[in-house]
Amino acid sequence: MAPGGARIAVLVVAVGVGAKLRRQLATVVMPLLQPLRACVLLSLIGGLATLRVVPHMRASFAKAGLTGIDLNKQTTRRLASGELVRPYEGVAVPEAMGAVSCAVYLVCLFLFIPLPFAQPGVPAYSDGAFPHAQLARLLCALLSICCMCFLGFADNVLDLRWRDRLILPLAASLPVLMTYAATGGVTTVKVPAAAQALLGLGGSVDIGALYFVYISLLAIFCTNAINILAGVNGLEVGQSVVIGLTIAAFNCVQLARWPEDSVLVGHNLFSLYVVLPFITTSLGLLWHNWYPASVFVGDTYCYFAGMTFAVAGILGHFSKTMLLFFLPQLVNFVYSLPQLALIIPCPRHRMPGYLPATDQLALSTVDFRPDELTTLGRLAYRALAALRAVHVRERADGSVAMSNLTIINFVLHVCGPMREASLTRALLGVQLASSVLAFAIRYPLAALLYDVVK
Amino acid sequence: MAPGGARIAVLVVAVGVGAKLRRQLATVVMPLLQPLRACVLLSLIGGLATLRVVPHMRASFAKAGLTGIDLNKQTTRRLASGELVRPYEGVAVPEAMGAVSCAVYLVCLFLFIPLPFAQPGVPAYSDGAFPHAQLARLLCALLSICCMCFLGFADNVLDLRWRDRLILPLAASLPVLMTYAATGGVTTVKVPAAAQALLGLGGSVDIGALYFVYISLLAIFCTNAINILAGVNGLEVGQSVVIGLTIAAFNCVQLARWPEDSVLVGHNLFSLYVVLPFITTSLGLLWHNWYPASVFVGDTYCYFAGMTFAVAGILGHFSKTMLLFFLPQLVNFVYSLPQLALIIPCPRHRMPGYLPATDQLALSTVDFRPDELTTLGRLAYRALAALRAVHVRERADGSVAMSNLTIINFVLHVCGPMREASLTRALLGVQLASSVLAFAIRYPLAALLYDVVK
Repeated sequence: MAPGGARIAVLVVAVGVGAKLRRQLATVVMPLLQPLRACVLLSLIGGLATLRVVPHMRASFAKAGLTGIDLNKQTTRRLASGELVRPYEGVAVPEAMGAVSCAVYLVCLFLFIPLPFAQPGVPAYSDGAFPHAQLARLLCALLSICCMCFLGFADNVLDLRWRDRLILPLAASLPVLMTYAATGGVTTVKVPAAAQALLGLGGSVDIGALYFVYISLLAIFCTNAINILAGVNGLEVGQSVVIGLTIAAFNCVQLARWPEDSVLVGHNLFSLYVVLPFITTSLGLLWHNWYPASVFVGDTYCYFAGMTFAVAGILGHFSKTMLLFFLPQLVNFVYSLPQLALIIPCPRHRMPGYLPATDQLALSTVDFRPDELTTLGRLAYRALAALRAVHVRERADGSVAMSNLTIINFVLHVCGPMREASLTRALLGVQLASSVLAFAIRYPLAALLYDVVK
Repeated sequence: MAPGGARIAVLVVAVGVGAKLRRQLATVVMPLLQPLRACVLLSLIGGLATLRVVPHMRASFAKAGLTGIDLNKQTTRRLASGELVRPYEGVAVPEAMGAVSCAVYLVCLFLFIPLPFAQPGVPAYSDGAFPHAQLARLLCALLSICCMCFLGFADNVLDLRWRDRLILPLAASLPVLMTYAATGGVTTVKVPAAAQALLGLGGSVDIGALYFVYISLLAIFCTNAINILAGVNGLEVGQSVVIGLTIAAFNCVQLARWPEDSVLVGHNLFSLYVVLPFITTSLGLLWHNWYPASVFVGDTYCYFAGMTFAVAGILGHFSKTMLLFFLPQLVNFVYSLPQLALIIPCPRHRMPGYLPATDQLALSTVDFRPDELTTLGRLAYRALAALRAVHVRERADGSVAMSNLTIINFVLHVCGPMREASLTRALLGVQLASSVLAFAIRYPLAALLYDVVK
């Protein structure tokens, strides 16, 4: 074929594809975009509102005794004796201020409730045709998030015990669980093609009660995952924003790939409705929580963020994909296991240490004698040391100082001491890179395991 | 007819009525009783849980600085100087502990969510037949109540400004409003028969946006009504329990009167589901809040109680009747108006005063010179004094000490000083009597105004 002929063929194909896309846009995508546009608008307003309201509320939180000490700062302080201490380590910062972004987020989504159901240009629903199921899904998502905000704020104020970290998310996930039970939700899971052939199973298996255990564990994991990777200005909110953006990007990709699958479109739009105002209100909060933080976000925010992701993943039916977006948190958990399981000694705090002279953060260490560990502990220690996954300083008396097992310390082990803002940026870079990796895993992997990839 | 014949006739009628009642019981009422029975069981468990958990949480609330001073008690206290003060007025009591009953209530109703939809013996719903609308109603009720608990607790902790007392209930009532808007809820009101004839109107009139204003005002009224009639041990929770019991009694009467009207049955059952666990968890809290109170319930509880009543009334479609159950609160509001509108001077606190010598409460007064009031003020003062609706002590210099305009002071004006527990009992007696009055008004009045009374 002559070059001119090839060009014409490409043009014809392009026009054909363009026309098909336009048709899809007009009949399927455009009507859906109206509530989405309203959601974006409400989200922007919510973000600006959070940005404005947070500094106004600082005094109220401080007055109520909700303050935390930022250990990675130095200031000047006059003691009761009149003595001036400079540099004095640690400044008091209003704590639990994530509650403000929770409240703004909830009001935004409350106002949004009727919008997906009252689109201008779409005729009124005939009797019985109203999509009550979709309304119930939105309401039960909001109920779980709202309950998590209430219980999270109560935890922040009352400083409950560590076991409540497991019970509170469980209580807040009840609306999702129970609505699932009420509507006779399908508790089947798709079986990978290879397993179907190997185990002689059908395309999907009913795992019944196990599904409820899975949802509960997911809620507990998500809420605690963000809480555990914390302790540096802007890290809790920053990682949540990155995860939120990743979920939104995934939803957009799914919407673009399967615009004609109305069930999938419904799931991904729902997730966008829930996640978009979360991203903007979190950005409003991040502005004040970024180094040097003028507010702390508290457990309230971590619970709120985790539950928002959990309901988006569960009710948007992409919970396995969502777990991929928690890769750094999962790695942090696995890396921490030797200390969490007390195979290797675990100090009360594993935050990085502060170097006042250079205003930098350095890794924190734990001291122990390797020969006093159990066999399992010695094995773990030697493996970590051999892999250079930890910083180890050996002392003359046979004891060692090993860096604590968190990915914050790991980054400091790899890069050396750095300023707090750089550390947050580095960790958010890791989060972003792992989101890219998650996308790279998600599509080829799913294609490999299942026949149809959605 | 011979006496024997009359007896037989009565017997035949009785058997006939009995058989009809039994048929109704078997076909209509019994299937409904199963979720109701589960609700009663969950409510009892919730009540016991509140009773047990509240004392366990006292220390956490006190440690978080959530304490209030009970001014109507005396104790012994050693000052910093070593001096022993006896009697020392006022004891510190953990505050905002209504949050515990809120949390227990929410968990109870979360667990209840699937029960009205999964009745044993009833076949599974066929596709599309699931009552999603009823599920959405329950979820949106819980969402408003949960949001009110969150915002109420935040108000309690952060001590927000008075104008937030109007904004917070408005924000929390949004889910009910917006769900109403989403489902294209009917915004028509029934017109009394007389008005129909007079104004040439049909049986009902669409009041559109005004209906939304009405719902918002109702939420603000209910939450603040209980907050304002407060200040004596056990009064907030006590009056809420009486109102809750009155609503439950009304629902039962309606269920018994119209067992064959499925819409009305649905409304009243819904209200019972929401109110029953409220009554039991409140009773568990009242046990600790009764004189001498070992906990204070805080604004958290007042907001929670008010919003529970508001959603029961709005979504149960008996909001006008419910307002009748707030008679003492309405009377208190009208009686207070001259002071609230500043026609008559209003001191910062209008609580009764404490008499340490006899451990009694006496009315509190406000001092002013009648000749310095505005014309309207003088008129109000003279009317109140002439009606003996206030206690007045005239001084030689022309000024007067008038009892503050609250029904708490009014009861003390009528009965004289009394001990705190007796005062609470008297005020709860007033609340109970007004509930009886409300029933007496409701049925004959409705019969007079409308053709069919439901």
